[in-house]
Formats: sequence, C-alpha cells, structure tokens
Amino acid sequence: MTLFYLLDIIGTMAFATSGALTAMSKKLDLFGVLIVAVVTAVGGGTLRDVMIGSTPVCWRGDLNYVYAITIAFVLAVVFRGRFDKYRTSLLLFDTIGFGVFTLIGLAKGLAIGLHPVICVALGMITACFGGVIRDILCNDIPVIFQREIYATICLLGGAVFFALRYFNLPTDVLYLVTSLVMIAVRLLAIRYKWSLPSLPG
Amino acid sequence: MTLFYLLDIIGTMAFATSGALTAMSKKLDLFGVLIVAVVTAVGGGTLRDVMIGSTPVCWRGDLNYVYAITIAFVLAVVFRGRFDKYRTSLLLFDTIGFGVFTLIGLAKGLAIGLHPVICVALGMITACFGGVIRDILCNDIPVIFQREIYATICLLGGAVFFALRYFNLPTDVLYLVTSLVMIAVRLLAIRYKWSLPSLPG
Amino acid sequence: MTLFYLLDIIGTMAFATSGALTAMSKKLDLFGVLIVAVVTAVGGGTLRDVMIGSTPVCWRGDLNYVYAITIAFVLAVVFRGRFDKYRTSLLLFDTIGFGVFTLIGLAKGLAIGLHPVICVALGMITACFGGVIRDILCNDIPVIFQREIYATICLLGGAVFFALRYFNLPTDVLYLVTSLVMIAVRLLAIRYKWSLPSLPG
Repeated sequence: MTLFYLLDIIGTMAFATSGALTAMSKKLDLFGVLIVAVVTAVGGGTLRDVMIGSTPVCWRGDLNYVYAITIAFVLAVVFRGRFDKYRTSLLLFDTIGFGVFTLIGLAKGLAIGLHPVICVALGMITACFGGVIRDILCNDIPVIFQREIYATICLLGGAVFFALRYFNLPTDVLYLVTSLVMIAVRLLAIRYKWSLPSLPG
Repeated sequence: MTLFYLLDIIGTMAFATSGALTAMSKKLDLFGVLIVAVVTAVGGGTLRDVMIGSTPVCWRGDLNYVYAITIAFVLAVVFRGRFDKYRTSLLLFDTIGFGVFTLIGLAKGLAIGLHPVICVALGMITACFGGVIRDILCNDIPVIFQREIYATICLLGGAVFFALRYFNLPTDVLYLVTSLVMIAVRLLAIRYKWSLPSLPG
Repeated sequence: MTLFYLLDIIGTMAFATSGALTAMSKKLDLFGVLIVAVVTAVGGGTLRDVMIGSTPVCWRGDLNYVYAITIAFVLAVVFRGRFDKYRTSLLLFDTIGFGVFTLIGLAKGLAIGLHPVICVALGMITACFGGVIRDILCNDIPVIFQREIYATICLLGGAVFFALRYFNLPTDVLYLVTSLVMIAVRLLAIRYKWSLPSLPG
C-alpha cells in the first residue's frame, strides 16, 4: 500500500463524512444518509470514469473503499453532535482528499492521452462533483458554485501540474508540489475567507 | 416470453405511472409528464448500465419497453383523477417492479463477476434510482431518502439472495424466494408504517 | 470546416451563453457561472454519448468547443447587463443550436443502428438535456418540462426526418428540411406563445 493510496482512502472517508453530515442536517433517514455519504465519496470519480468510458467504474474491484465509507458513515452517525470539536481535523482530511482526487483525475486523463485542458477538467470533476451531486440530492444549489473557491483551486492545481510537467520533473515531485500548493492555497482561502465575486445582471 | 419478462414489463409500467402522477401533481406540461414517466421507468437501469459500461443502455433493442411506457403514460394522463381507486393495484404492480428490478441489477452485476456488495448496490440502484431521478427532476429531496424503507428492503433482498445462493439453490428458487421476501416485507412495511429514523445533530 | 460544423459551434456558444445568464441570475459566483455555461453547452451531448457508450465523450478531441464556450462565457459576463438588446439574435442562435444538436443526436443513433424511436429520443436528449441539467444545477424544475414546447419540436423534427428519409432523399436535403421545419415551428411557437397544457389531477 502506497502513501498515495492511504491518502486516497483518508480523502474518501472525509468526503463520506461530509456527505453524511450534510444529509443529517437535512433530516434524511439513515438510508438517505448512507447513500449521500457514498455518493459524495465516489460520485466525482464515478462521473469521471463514466465520461472517459473507464467502466465498470472506479469502485468495482477494491472493497477498501466500501469499508472506508462504511466506517466514516458509522462514525458520522454516532458522533453526529460532536463534529464541531473535530472541525479542524475534518477540514484537513477533506483538503487531503481534494488534492488527491484532483491528481487522480489528472493522471487518468493523461493515461489515455487527453489534452491538458480536458485533464484539468477531469481533475476538477473528480474532486468537486461528488459534492455537487450531494447538494443536488439534498435539493440545494451546489455550494462550490456559490461561496467556496474550492473548485477554482482544483483548476489552479491543474495549471501548476502542467506548468511543472513542462520541465520534465519526476512524477513524485509533480504530485507532491501540486498537492502542497493546492492544500496551502485552500487553507489560506479558508483562513482569509477568499471568495469569487458573483455578478448579478 | 418468460414470466420474469412479463413482470419486468408490468414493473416498468407501474414505475412510468408513478412518474407521470408525480409530474402531474407538480403541474408539469404534457412533455414534462412524458419525460418524467420515461425517466422513472428506465432511469435506474440506465444508470446501472452506464456505470458497468453495458452501453448502449438497456432500452436500446427492445421496443416493448417503449410501448409499455407509452401505454402507462396515456393511461395515467387520461385517468389522472381516478387513481385513488386503483391505489392498491398500483402499489402491488410497483412492488412487483421493485422486486424484479432489484433482481435484474443483481444478476447483471453477477454476470460480469462483480463482488456481492457491489451487486447488491447495483440491484438497489436499478430499483430505486429511477425514483431518485424523478424526484430530482421535480425539484424534491428523493422520497426514498426520507420516509420510505423501500431502498432498505432492496439491500435486504440482496442479502437474502446471496445468503440463499451460498447453499447452491437453483436460480429460479433464488429469484422466487428473494422476490417473495422483498414483496412481503414491503407490504408489511406499508401496512404497519415502518420507517427508518432520521438523526438530526 | 463545413457549414454544419460552424452551426454546431454557433449553437454551442448560444447554449453556453444561456447557461451563463441563468447562473448569473441565480447569483452564482464566477466559477459556478463557468460550470453551468459548460454543462448547458455540452451536457446534452455528453449524456447521449455516455448512454450509447461513445466514450471518451464528445468534447474529448476538439478544443474548438473549449474556445467557443470560453468566449461565450466571457462575453456573457462582460455584457451581462445588456443582453436584452441582443435577445433576438441570441434566440436565433439558440434555435440554430437546437436544430443542429437534434440532428447530431439523430445521426449518432442511426450510425450505430438504433431504432428510429430511440434515435429521435437521442436527438431530443442532445438538444434539450443540457438545459435540463442547467436547471437542476440551479435548483429549478427544468423549464422545458413546464412552459416551452422546445422539446416537443425536437420530437416533431425527428418525425419529419424519418418521414423524409423513407423517400430516400439525399442526407443534405434531409438535414436542411428538418432544420428549417424545426426552426420555423419554434419561431412560430415563440411568436404565438404556443404551449402544451399541464394536467393537474
């Protein structure tokens, strides 16, 4: 098991937890909470795989994702009133997932020879569209379309990745630098409440 | 034509009717009612086929589904004010569809060698996600995430199926017993108003 | 570059503009506006390609769509307060896109030997479901399910196409006549405010 895989699992659990907490705040029943947790965790990767024809989709062969999501779901339900305490940890794990998922999407696009612009889009879809589907299922306008610059950082991460790649750096360095830039910018964005403007006519 | 195929068609009609009735209650126009009827009937199977890469999707080759959905749509529109009378029949047909669709999803997953946990998920997606897409199109939080234990019974059905399969029973028996258990539990659930708890923080 | 391809690009830009304007009216941030513009423009074609297994999806190889959508997005944001003046032009471009997209969907279905009924459905999905996904992302009931006969004209266009095809007319004539009929009916529908009835129980 590589470090990257471990970070992927941690990110999956963070995304599942975010889904479960959103679903509970909407007073869904236990099944609804489970489904929203699953969809938030695997929705982005599933959408990506369906669009590039990499089916059966990502969660086919590897039951570790099933275990990770189940554990996250149970923890979220049991400790549902006490997540404020762990807010910082959860945010950190979520940010890890967000970096890792973007890189996985980029790498999958590259592996089948897609154009960098499309690879960046796939990275963003992998990291962000689980949350988009979560919000649609909960009947909200997706939060990343409104208040967070989350997705914009995915696009930035993609740009950094391809800029560095231009200099033929080794893959490990590419991954490491890109993730660190994304994580740093996101933490700064949260700390200083950066957001994009909305532009009503 | 096998009995199973006939039950599949009956289930498809029941799902289309449920979609059309929901759409009319939202005051959609005739085209909207048609699309929601179609999507409710074939949405779960389409989503499943797209995810396992079994494309062109299920409704490709067989026009009987087109006829069945068209008939259900016309009946739902013409008799729209009088469905209260047929509520019990409709519920029974819907329950048949729900059992049959779950089994089709399970069988499709098994046929391509997926893990039982994933097969059970595919069964649930086949039976439940037509309704989820219906509710999203009608701008509601999916009803199966809130008040009905419908989807939980799919998971139960999947568990029963694989438990029985462990004893190497013939496929027909597997299908029959699983469907009967699911139908019985659902009718009991409706009769005694079973539901899952919601857990607001 | 053929005339048909040029019309496809014009239609894509019109659809992206419609997505961006809807998103800005919902006060989404800039990223949200971009994503809704992209999804409105490519969503219908993407859904079609995913359903017929033609993946990686339509926007894979051809960056002209990326440029077209980017230009439309920038124009929509910069001139957002002044679109009332260009309403007629925008409507015309949108109607062109709608005709071209329907034909592309029909042609893709025919090319893999699907039944005419399914081809007509694919044409309608290509032309209409970008707008459906736009409305879902913006948390509205899709406008084509409620007030516009837009989608019904796609079905009509499909019927005209297959009726003419029965007489073995050359493809160019088929495409031309079908588009002209669709565009004429749509403009008449807007001019005389044609709509389908809704049928509440």
